[in-house]
Amino acid sequence: MSDLGALTTPSLLVDRTRVERNVARMGARIAGLGATLRPHVKTHKSIEVGRLQAAAGMRGITVSTLAEARAFAAHGFDDITYAVPIERGKFEAVAQMNAAGVRLAVITDDVTVPGPLGEAARQAGVTVDTWVKVDCGYHRCGVDPEGPSLAELARRIGERTHLRFAGILAHAGHSYQARGPTEILAVARSERDVMVAAAAHLASAGVPVPAVSIGSTPTAMGVDHLTGVHEVRAGNYAFFDVMQVTIGSCTADDCALSVLAAVVHRDPKRGTVILDAGGIALSKDAGIADADGVTHYGRVLDVEGRDLGLRVTSLSQEHGVVHVRDDALLTRLGVGARVRVLVNHSCLTAAQHAEYVVCEGTAIVGRWVNHRGW
Amino acid sequence: MSDLGALTTPSLLVDRTRVERNVARMGARIAGLGATLRPHVKTHKSIEVGRLQAAAGMRGITVSTLAEARAFAAHGFDDITYAVPIERGKFEAVAQMNAAGVRLAVITDDVTVPGPLGEAARQAGVTVDTWVKVDCGYHRCGVDPEGPSLAELARRIGERTHLRFAGILAHAGHSYQARGPTEILAVARSERDVMVAAAAHLASAGVPVPAVSIGSTPTAMGVDHLTGVHEVRAGNYAFFDVMQVTIGSCTADDCALSVLAAVVHRDPKRGTVILDAGGIALSKDAGIADADGVTHYGRVLDVEGRDLGLRVTSLSQEHGVVHVRDDALLTRLGVGARVRVLVNHSCLTAAQHAEYVVCEGTAIVGRWVNHRGW
Repeated sequence: MSDLGALTTPSLLVDRTRVERNVARMGARIAGLGATLRPHVKTHKSIEVGRLQAAAGMRGITVSTLAEARAFAAHGFDDITYAVPIERGKFEAVAQMNAAGVRLAVITDDVTVPGPLGEAARQAGVTVDTWVKVDCGYHRCGVDPEGPSLAELARRIGERTHLRFAGILAHAGHSYQARGPTEILAVARSERDVMVAAAAHLASAGVPVPAVSIGSTPTAMGVDHLTGVHEVRAGNYAFFDVMQVTIGSCTADDCALSVLAAVVHRDPKRGTVILDAGGIALSKDAGIADADGVTHYGRVLDVEGRDLGLRVTSLSQEHGVVHVRDDALLTRLGVGARVRVLVNHSCLTAAQHAEYVVCEGTAIVGRWVNHRGW
Repeated sequence: MSDLGALTTPSLLVDRTRVERNVARMGARIAGLGATLRPHVKTHKSIEVGRLQAAAGMRGITVSTLAEARAFAAHGFDDITYAVPIERGKFEAVAQMNAAGVRLAVITDDVTVPGPLGEAARQAGVTVDTWVKVDCGYHRCGVDPEGPSLAELARRIGERTHLRFAGILAHAGHSYQARGPTEILAVARSERDVMVAAAAHLASAGVPVPAVSIGSTPTAMGVDHLTGVHEVRAGNYAFFDVMQVTIGSCTADDCALSVLAAVVHRDPKRGTVILDAGGIALSKDAGIADADGVTHYGRVLDVEGRDLGLRVTSLSQEHGVVHVRDDALLTRLGVGARVRVLVNHSCLTAAQHAEYVVCEGTAIVGRWVNHRGW
């Protein structure tokens, strides 16, 4: 054990106690609602966090890259859904992983996919679980839940001897537009109800739906019941972040991820300090505006984690600009001072770093690898 | 040699022919203006690009992280300026690298730094070249070129037995606000003239200035003369990018960096396609608005590099959204189609990838490591 004072800056810090608490709470919550949790590991890409989620009762994982799938499979996670629509360049890798004993399921919303995907599976001698991606209101990907493509796609999958229609799957990304419990609940109900209705519609058209999968952190935190839903694929909740605080999914005390930074410049006349955490260390995700309308790149805390009431307001590659109006604070934040930036969007910031420095309070208790890349 | 069709997506592509041309042109340009070029390798973090720059006549390099300094030093680059203001957490590493035979110079704009920095140098038995960072109009870091701090800081450095006052250094980051040659030239002249005047002011106050260092890609491309300036630290020019096209530093044909991506979703009704290059593969740097006022995350080209007239308009972690109004184009961009995204801000996008796939046309001719981290 050492402490934060000796770390190089910038470094990515994760508070293990908070991760454990976040993970246990979501595990209990989804189990209590009668569904299973298949956490999206794209937020952390960390085997150790995956193991904490496994201990909290998850069933399988969700990934956003084949690199995540390979890394987790190499550590014994053998039930994986790759939740970016599949295309031909990844068919062979998916088939090979299935041939190696990993249940790597895929998603699609395109009628041209099942034919060649099924052929790749046949050649590898495997059956690939294939979900139909449904647009539950986010309007990014997915078929219309009320249109004819849904049944057609499910049938095309079912017709292929080496594909199995796994069910229908959606992500309520529009929950990030919500503010506060009432708006979150409205999106959560819509995500659930659209998908349960789509499953009923398919069943009445003669296409039984093995499973209904939904998920986003705000809706998973806010939904009132999950009748008709089989699994939830939330991910951000392991770390949370300032965006989730603003949405109303969590409090600042739940946020587990911060970047340790050093002050490298102070200008009393302009009332600014510059940190050595810039657009690479923090990511350039401006997230969503705070409740007061200010868009920023993270809140500034002291090393012990106390909020200094400051925000990182602009970034260049290795510089983060913080405006400081308070003279006493400006005096305290001399060149060489350390602060922590509570990150705006943990999924994006985590991916900027090769590893996590694992902390309990200000004590360093370990390092976790971030399995980046594609 | 293979070709782009077999690559996984997303992949970072670099056009070697364009890099060589860009590097040769800047080398000749700065030599012709009578100054030396100390390229900022933060853009590429690549030993191979550094070697191309060395072949084109550079003298030493500039870095934005100690990780870059270590990586380049390990490959024989022994004359390095670390151009982020130094703070106590890095004193020991800097002293150690100097002790190992690398001339690793630092910059500062803070009067509290020379004392303890000089002490760290003394303990390591080395002399550390130390520049005074001057604010030439960008207003990020640096001392006022007309204020009393400049001479005071130069004197404090000169007083330390184990520091050497290396000169004054500035970066005209405000050149990124310029549009077109006239505005670029105005910033370039101001960057040069402010610094030459500051050096004269210091000399008249009894502080000889060994060197004047300036640099940004737009000003290096646009400046009319460099009388009184010793070195130029441009970096982006090795790759250029869409931002530099918009500023007017280069043309689209100079841009060497793109991200190969696959279409994973197409919606004819909404007129959108989704790429598997999102906020991680491209970075979330929205750069500066195009001439038509549109802010975006890169231009979309076909695999051969022809501009399709499309832009990536929004991003999530592994998804990039492209709006396509043309029906024929939408038909062509089916799921599985490949495109290249000409990147908005090459420094930020490059740092999102562990390696470059080096191309000549559509042929793959090598791989270069990106030395990321801190």
